[in-house]
Amino acid sequence: MDLLSIKDPSFLKGMSNQELEVLSQEIRQFLIEKLSVTGGHIGPNLGVVELTIALHKCFDSPKDKFIWDVGHQSYVHKILTGRACEFDTLRQFKGLCGFPKRIESEHDVWETGHSSTSLSAAMGMVIARDLKKESSFIVPIIGDGALTGGMALEALNHIGHEKKNMIVILNDNEMSIAPNVGALHNILGQLRTAGKYQWVKDELEVFLKKVPAVGGKLAATAERVKDSLKYLFVSGMFFEELGFTYLGPVDGHDFEALFENFRYAKKTEGPVLLHVITKKGKGFHPAESDTKGTWHGTGPYKMDTGAFVKPDKAPPPAWSSLVSETVRKLAREDERIVAITPAMPVGSKLEGFASEFPERMYDVGIAEQHAATVAAGLATQNMKPFLAIYSTFLQRAYDQVVHDICRQNLNVFIGIDRAGLVGADGETHQGVFDIAFLRHVPNIVLMMPKDENEGQHMVYTAMTYDDGPIAMRFPRGNGLGVPMDESLKSIPIGKWEVLKDGEDAAILTFGTTIPMALEAAETLEKQGISVKVINARFIKPLDEKMLNELFLNNIPILTIEEAVLQGGFGSYVLEHAHEKGYYHQAIDRMGIPDQFIEHGDVESLLEEIGMTTAEVVRRITILARKKQQRA
Amino acid sequence: MDLLSIKDPSFLKGMSNQELEVLSQEIRQFLIEKLSVTGGHIGPNLGVVELTIALHKCFDSPKDKFIWDVGHQSYVHKILTGRACEFDTLRQFKGLCGFPKRIESEHDVWETGHSSTSLSAAMGMVIARDLKKESSFIVPIIGDGALTGGMALEALNHIGHEKKNMIVILNDNEMSIAPNVGALHNILGQLRTAGKYQWVKDELEVFLKKVPAVGGKLAATAERVKDSLKYLFVSGMFFEELGFTYLGPVDGHDFEALFENFRYAKKTEGPVLLHVITKKGKGFHPAESDTKGTWHGTGPYKMDTGAFVKPDKAPPPAWSSLVSETVRKLAREDERIVAITPAMPVGSKLEGFASEFPERMYDVGIAEQHAATVAAGLATQNMKPFLAIYSTFLQRAYDQVVHDICRQNLNVFIGIDRAGLVGADGETHQGVFDIAFLRHVPNIVLMMPKDENEGQHMVYTAMTYDDGPIAMRFPRGNGLGVPMDESLKSIPIGKWEVLKDGEDAAILTFGTTIPMALEAAETLEKQGISVKVINARFIKPLDEKMLNELFLNNIPILTIEEAVLQGGFGSYVLEHAHEKGYYHQAIDRMGIPDQFIEHGDVESLLEEIGMTTAEVVRRITILARKKQQRA
Repeated sequence: MDLLSIKDPSFLKGMSNQELEVLSQEIRQFLIEKLSVTGGHIGPNLGVVELTIALHKCFDSPKDKFIWDVGHQSYVHKILTGRACEFDTLRQFKGLCGFPKRIESEHDVWETGHSSTSLSAAMGMVIARDLKKESSFIVPIIGDGALTGGMALEALNHIGHEKKNMIVILNDNEMSIAPNVGALHNILGQLRTAGKYQWVKDELEVFLKKVPAVGGKLAATAERVKDSLKYLFVSGMFFEELGFTYLGPVDGHDFEALFENFRYAKKTEGPVLLHVITKKGKGFHPAESDTKGTWHGTGPYKMDTGAFVKPDKAPPPAWSSLVSETVRKLAREDERIVAITPAMPVGSKLEGFASEFPERMYDVGIAEQHAATVAAGLATQNMKPFLAIYSTFLQRAYDQVVHDICRQNLNVFIGIDRAGLVGADGETHQGVFDIAFLRHVPNIVLMMPKDENEGQHMVYTAMTYDDGPIAMRFPRGNGLGVPMDESLKSIPIGKWEVLKDGEDAAILTFGTTIPMALEAAETLEKQGISVKVINARFIKPLDEKMLNELFLNNIPILTIEEAVLQGGFGSYVLEHAHEKGYYHQAIDRMGIPDQFIEHGDVESLLEEIGMTTAEVVRRITILARKKQQRA
Repeated sequence: MDLLSIKDPSFLKGMSNQELEVLSQEIRQFLIEKLSVTGGHIGPNLGVVELTIALHKCFDSPKDKFIWDVGHQSYVHKILTGRACEFDTLRQFKGLCGFPKRIESEHDVWETGHSSTSLSAAMGMVIARDLKKESSFIVPIIGDGALTGGMALEALNHIGHEKKNMIVILNDNEMSIAPNVGALHNILGQLRTAGKYQWVKDELEVFLKKVPAVGGKLAATAERVKDSLKYLFVSGMFFEELGFTYLGPVDGHDFEALFENFRYAKKTEGPVLLHVITKKGKGFHPAESDTKGTWHGTGPYKMDTGAFVKPDKAPPPAWSSLVSETVRKLAREDERIVAITPAMPVGSKLEGFASEFPERMYDVGIAEQHAATVAAGLATQNMKPFLAIYSTFLQRAYDQVVHDICRQNLNVFIGIDRAGLVGADGETHQGVFDIAFLRHVPNIVLMMPKDENEGQHMVYTAMTYDDGPIAMRFPRGNGLGVPMDESLKSIPIGKWEVLKDGEDAAILTFGTTIPMALEAAETLEKQGISVKVINARFIKPLDEKMLNELFLNNIPILTIEEAVLQGGFGSYVLEHAHEKGYYHQAIDRMGIPDQFIEHGDVESLLEEIGMTTAEVVRRITILARKKQQRA
């Protein structure tokens, strides 16, 4: 059929299983084609084609509510709810979002991006439904990886206790982004091979009810015998103990099996966990045979071979590689170094470290809070932990950074990856809050390098620093291709660097916005305005000496940061100026305004919010004129 | 024996069980006596007297490491490690801390305050121990309440997977602060009554090994039969499934039983969970018979009757009561209102709401992340959730506030309790970061009332606001005793209030620091300096109109906030001034400096950091003089 003509999922109701099989193939072909051009989360979506079709056939969205955990597996759902025609713009500026988005469709009832939120959201919706005495099915769809996130476990504990009706679909593909770890993963592994026992359950319950009730200690023993029998026949005792009815495992690519289980789940009182086995990348060989997570989310690729479309010349090293490989190099000399990642060994490019130091590398699963505090625990024992984490996911460990790492002033190196705008993943993934949520925390040092050479020295600085927590933020993507020093050196804490001298105004900036500052300074120079450009590589502490000199000489300042303005670096400079009594100091700030920034290529996003070279020129011109007027 | 003479726990090694019993009674008496004067966490500590003695007798601290989850149950540990003589100063300014503190003793290897961190910290220490090839026992002691916190569950998943040696003591008293909720609680309840099966386990393992191995499907079935038999004989299958050896349950007040289990645990390979049943408040009747959590932590009390020492006259209503009771009143009119608390129904004074609206009140257990996102889920269904949470614990839901509540711009009312300095609980509990970690989040409204009358109007404002998330911070303790309006009204969002007029300077402040500002203004008036005092009750958004007027008239500003200065309210005012180009505006800021603030009475703490009326007077005098010089 013509996927572009789909308006809503009601057309599925009348389709036969055979027709659904054909539709599945069409959707797969559509995804493989479209994503070969735009890139996107191909693996997860190919895995849920049948599951999504089956859900939309058996339930009535939007009356029934699907809550897609993480949400990168919602493409099929988007196609079935009338958005196929927008796939050419997927994850592009002003285009279709790669995650559920409430303004896009009434079928998107909950927005995601970060993992493990779906069960809690579903619980809120279930409570609302029951209070309103409405009747509908609330269906969170959560992966086995996301299940290890603490808040999902908190939710399981609460949902199992409350016993309200909810149908949890556990989409088990044995992967999160990388292969999963953890005891829960092992439990699921056992269940996968255990076969289907759920149909025995009803008869078993009837039988068990006949076992006569007896008093006192014997009763307890009888209860245990019952439970033990149940354990023999019923899979999923782990979930059953938590208060769920466990159904499955069921083949997530078998329509009839899915329908049968959905029907059963709908009839069941209380919370149900339906264990569905799917194959990530199903139907596209390169993605299907992927064991590392390479095909979780990709850029453009060749449809026939699955080869990734490569740029014309090899790019400079990725920032993640630079950082992890430098840590690895240092780990050869310092055996106290241990790397911790919350489920991002591939994204954080820790494969090399892991293969060289398997005993000093811990992938703790999707568990940012635990990861941060494991690092703190290591540091109390005089180890040197490297916590590799994305800026946006560090948000989830804010309390652990405050309470466990910084309050105890422990020597943890936090490598904050994907800091700044990340582009296509959009507002749930922009790494723009970290400065604002870290710089008010006592004891922390926060820095950002101007290029990968400075980056390697900063990693060295961090791993040899022994006066408390230290964090380095670095952007998504690749370095600038600068020459790399052979030997590593330490950068004095809190010391900035003058990149270009000037007298009429000064730009303070760091990391990705330095090129913009230098370019603007060049333009301004031609207009007779001489601008000092400072690499403010330490966001905390500030280089007070350098700042005070600027203040004393009454040089107007423009701060630029690819991070939220509120409570950010520029705000810190303002605080310092007023604290020192420099009330006349002109300070202007550029950065991310007080709004969530949607998906799109970084360049368009920066343009949209007015972070351009032209704007730097405009603002400096005003500042410099003010200074001249005063002089 | 003389508890004050104890230097370290080595004296325990030679003691008989009978002598230990006597010691237990002496310690109980000591705690009951001392805490009757100072107040403190009496219930939790009376519950762990024998457990703590037994631990220190059987293990070798500090070589072996005890990690006290939350840490308020560490008083007996403090006595046994030479700190009995400091109990007169417990939780007082410059006195003994109520939580483990590394500078106090080498036996305090990990600092706590927030719940559920101990397992992650222990995991870090275990990894370090094994990498260093050292031999020691790492022993986290965690309550059944803390076990429901997401990060503890993340840790269980990881620890069970890694299979390293660790002895987890589950201190099960069936309470967290209030009685526990959740499916895990039900599981523990079953275990408590199940009796002791662990001694059968070894023989069972031997027997099961004899069951012949067979191939294919049959093998899987045989495995299940094994597991089922195991389930019949072995308690704690939930934990066994997670990869732990489950021991217990054991009576936590029976020395011989504890010793026996510790010996067994020490011999066991891999992670062990020892389930210890204790009685909170044991040995002190009022605390022992407490079912609500009243005796978890208390102020001074009468030793004979257990009556709390009351102030001479009845204090004004507690802030928590004011807020929860106002929500309750509104809930009678608006059936969309639902209250959510993460395990703090007593602290947040939600008992009244719960008894009137049992179906609209959810205690989700120690699970702040889940609580925040349940609230968000409710809001998507047009309900009006009230999330009652302490400032310090909201830190743990930072990501959920950003990602789930504010990004989706949902109508959630966050009641931020215990905002500002909390006093005796100290640095882990000070509610001083919330402004800095919230004001940079788009869409949120953040406010703080000057007194309980304004407080009730703000609650009304929040519950009738339908333009996104709104939060009200309010302090620990009681209101000011002001007259209360009969009917509730809405306060215009972002509108400040002039409390006193003046021309030479202006003070912008809110909440608890308003009296200080007014007092200083009065003193300054007498010195001929006229000060405007503004109730800046909206921290976000600012009252731009009022601010711009101050700027236009060049009136120097002093901001005061009982919160961290970095990225706080004063910082926001600075940002606004420079954004509008008022570069000449003198702005001085008072607040909490960039350090963690220890325990002590709030007055002493404020004095220590220079937040006094005298300092306000001094700073305003300087500002006003500057203005006069310019004029």
